[in-house]
Amino acid sequence: MDLSAEFKRWKAQCLSKADLSRKGSVDEDVLEIVQLLNGQEQFFTTSSCAGRIILLDRSVNGSEVQKQNCCWLLVTHKACVKDDVIIFVVGKIAASNPSRKRFTFKIHVLFPKDSESSCLIVALQKAKGDAILKFEPLVLHVQCRQLQDAQILHSVAIDSGFRNSGITVGKRGKTMLAVRSTHGLEVPLSHQGKLMVTEEYINFLLKIANQKMEENKKRIERFYHCLQHALEKETVSTTSQPKEKVNTSYIRKKKRKPGKARGKRVNEEHDKELENNDHDDPGISDTIFPEDY
Amino acid sequence: MDLSAEFKRWKAQCLSKADLSRKGSVDEDVLEIVQLLNGQEQFFTTSSCAGRIILLDRSVNGSEVQKQNCCWLLVTHKACVKDDVIIFVVGKIAASNPSRKRFTFKIHVLFPKDSESSCLIVALQKAKGDAILKFEPLVLHVQCRQLQDAQILHSVAIDSGFRNSGITVGKRGKTMLAVRSTHGLEVPLSHQGKLMVTEEYINFLLKIANQKMEENKKRIERFYHCLQHALEKETVSTTSQPKEKVNTSYIRKKKRKPGKARGKRVNEEHDKELENNDHDDPGISDTIFPEDY
Repeated sequence: MDLSAEFKRWKAQCLSKADLSRKGSVDEDVLEIVQLLNGQEQFFTTSSCAGRIILLDRSVNGSEVQKQNCCWLLVTHKACVKDDVIIFVVGKIAASNPSRKRFTFKIHVLFPKDSESSCLIVALQKAKGDAILKFEPLVLHVQCRQLQDAQILHSVAIDSGFRNSGITVGKRGKTMLAVRSTHGLEVPLSHQGKLMVTEEYINFLLKIANQKMEENKKRIERFYHCLQHALEKETVSTTSQPKEKVNTSYIRKKKRKPGKARGKRVNEEHDKELENNDHDDPGISDTIFPEDY
Repeated sequence: MDLSAEFKRWKAQCLSKADLSRKGSVDEDVLEIVQLLNGQEQFFTTSSCAGRIILLDRSVNGSEVQKQNCCWLLVTHKACVKDDVIIFVVGKIAASNPSRKRFTFKIHVLFPKDSESSCLIVALQKAKGDAILKFEPLVLHVQCRQLQDAQILHSVAIDSGFRNSGITVGKRGKTMLAVRSTHGLEVPLSHQGKLMVTEEYINFLLKIANQKMEENKKRIERFYHCLQHALEKETVSTTSQPKEKVNTSYIRKKKRKPGKARGKRVNEEHDKELENNDHDDPGISDTIFPEDY
């Protein structure tokens, strides 16, 4: 089975859809990375979200049926300031729509920067169940031609601060890197439609969410620059090594790349509750942390 | 390079420490899985945390130095009820201790089940900076003899609900699976020592954290049973396939395992904000989601 030829076929198939998707629908903050990756023969992106602040209204009734009525009150991919975008999604439409086609309508709302919470308050008033505010950092899925390519990208992701990134190898040999951060926020705000917190707290919360969005943006920029650097290195190092042969001997070839990041990853993953500092984790039961595995 | 022999050496080295670590320090809820994995020749665990509710006090000053004074006010690996354990860790000791040895002292606190928040309130009174309550689900790191073993374990993790699990391959060929869930909670409670929420809200929050702890426990049990099943299947299927040869031809051998879980993983990872229901994600820019990659 010629994996390289099949990869080219997969990529062509994907990018024909990606071109449509990129017309406005790839988040601005991640567009450069998506374009850089899709411009490489060994990569293509299958999904991306640059990071977002989202207000979700969960059904009070926990049953499966009720859960499907979960409603999105607010989604923004920018810090919660003016020029924000509110997206309402009717839960049942989303739920009855297992394919990723969906019907949403967007309302652009302008409100003054000095009342950051107003947009959230308006959305919260629509909450009938348990409203939850979340910040979600970048999620990026990249299909890689072979394991070695995924390892290089994984190393870039870890070095950029996306510590929960990981590789998946599918049954047909499809190799995917998921770029994930530990940098989140999930705050219940209302219970059965009743607001449980003050507006002062919501303002406080939005400042934190916006700070996390900024930190996420910095990591995305780091990711872009680390990726450029890694691709340049790779181009130099592979001139004398035909890639097609690498996928059956990745262990030896891998030595070309620093393992530090991966050693770091294991150590740092347990520090995810201390994402913003450099502690080790006093709570975890750890048996061995190889410096360089 | 005989990876299998080196793996045996790594495992022996690790388990000699793991035996010490398991004397009370591996979380009870994950002990069965750790023992099952370490009983297999192709796996050993390098770290584990069954899941916990943690109250963290972040320094007001965001500088690196100040960050190192981050203090752990409360850590519990059980739902916040009586027989809870409070662990105080002096931030500077943890921070100045890059190795995973540390000095902590534990105080066992009994308090009535009907005042679940009392333990948290007591801990919150000690907060001088920005206190944050977190629920963190299972984190488990398993070193695998070869990629194929990691793929099997990855499939088990995904099928059990640990959707953010991923594989890392180190520069010396060490293959690690990180088992991670999307199931979290991160709630700022105080700012500069000032409590920003009501005790009613803290009670509400603890109920949610405890529900998440219960769900996490169910997933851990699912993981254990899926793992047992996968290991039985593997034992049968490998009788005619000597493992030592697999690591240079994992793509073909991989076909023995269902790819469904991985296809699902990619689809569901974007649903992490809808962890508790079956929606697809209206917010993400997705270009293609292979059913079976």
